[in-house]
Amino acid sequence: MRVLGIDPGYALLGWGVVEAEGGRMRLVDYGCVETKAGTPMQHRLRTLQLGVRNLVTIYQPDDVAFEELFFARNVTTALMVGAARGAAIISATEYTENLYEYTPMQIKQAVTGYGKADKKQVQQMVKLLLGMKQVPQPDDAADAIACAITHCQAGAAREQFRMK
Amino acid sequence: MRVLGIDPGYALLGWGVVEAEGGRMRLVDYGCVETKAGTPMQHRLRTLQLGVRNLVTIYQPDDVAFEELFFARNVTTALMVGAARGAAIISATEYTENLYEYTPMQIKQAVTGYGKADKKQVQQMVKLLLGMKQVPQPDDAADAIACAITHCQAGAAREQFRMK
Repeated sequence: MRVLGIDPGYALLGWGVVEAEGGRMRLVDYGCVETKAGTPMQHRLRTLQLGVRNLVTIYQPDDVAFEELFFARNVTTALMVGAARGAAIISATEYTENLYEYTPMQIKQAVTGYGKADKKQVQQMVKLLLGMKQVPQPDDAADAIACAITHCQAGAAREQFRMK
Repeated sequence: MRVLGIDPGYALLGWGVVEAEGGRMRLVDYGCVETKAGTPMQHRLRTLQLGVRNLVTIYQPDDVAFEELFFARNVTTALMVGAARGAAIISATEYTENLYEYTPMQIKQAVTGYGKADKKQVQQMVKLLLGMKQVPQPDDAADAIACAITHCQAGAAREQFRMK
């Protein structure tokens, strides 16, 4: 099973592709879709939309796992991040019906065994679980990989995390 | 000049098409794109995306004018409304670069001459300005028409309202 993990953001959308086979996981690729500050909003959203469209086309994931957004500094930020998430969801759903969502706490719990682990602990575990030489950078990509790992490990419980 | 006005919302996205020629305005059509509560988010966003794509394809507006979202009850709502707005912007920008944005206060000011007018006053003026027999319903469609009127009346000042 191949999973595309996505950490949706407006300036930086992190992504990571993880393949799970018989209890083993392998990192296929990871990175960020970046949008330029100061360019019109519609161009930034279009960049995110096309970026995610490229990812599903290139990596052909079975499932797409999103990190759920729970909070934002304020309503204005939430409007922007919500739009970025919307753009990513639109492209993912063009490709597959299998969209899932995990909260930051569920991801921390799945990856480190502790729901309140800090960013560094999560990154160290991602490195360890996937046999990477260094911790993945930037943070947004590491978060997206962690989200994909969470989905791989969810097993049959997966269905309860289907996007609603 | 033909303007598509949009009042972006998650459950109900209002729209109105207004044509301005030599200082006169004419209502072409108006309505709402509706998304069903209880259906998965990705389907609702897709409905909004395809709905707006249909509107620009059918009505071929020169410009698209959005009512700007300024506030939301809370961050969760803002995330959803932001996603809805993102879906609408994505479809509009596929069709034209001419996207504009007006705040509720700018719209009230333009339509009624008073920035703090209430909904009813705005609707009455929309009816009057476009020679309608009844006030447009629902409110979301009326707001979208008011937004299109605002853009028609902005004249040369228009450029400062270009979406950023």
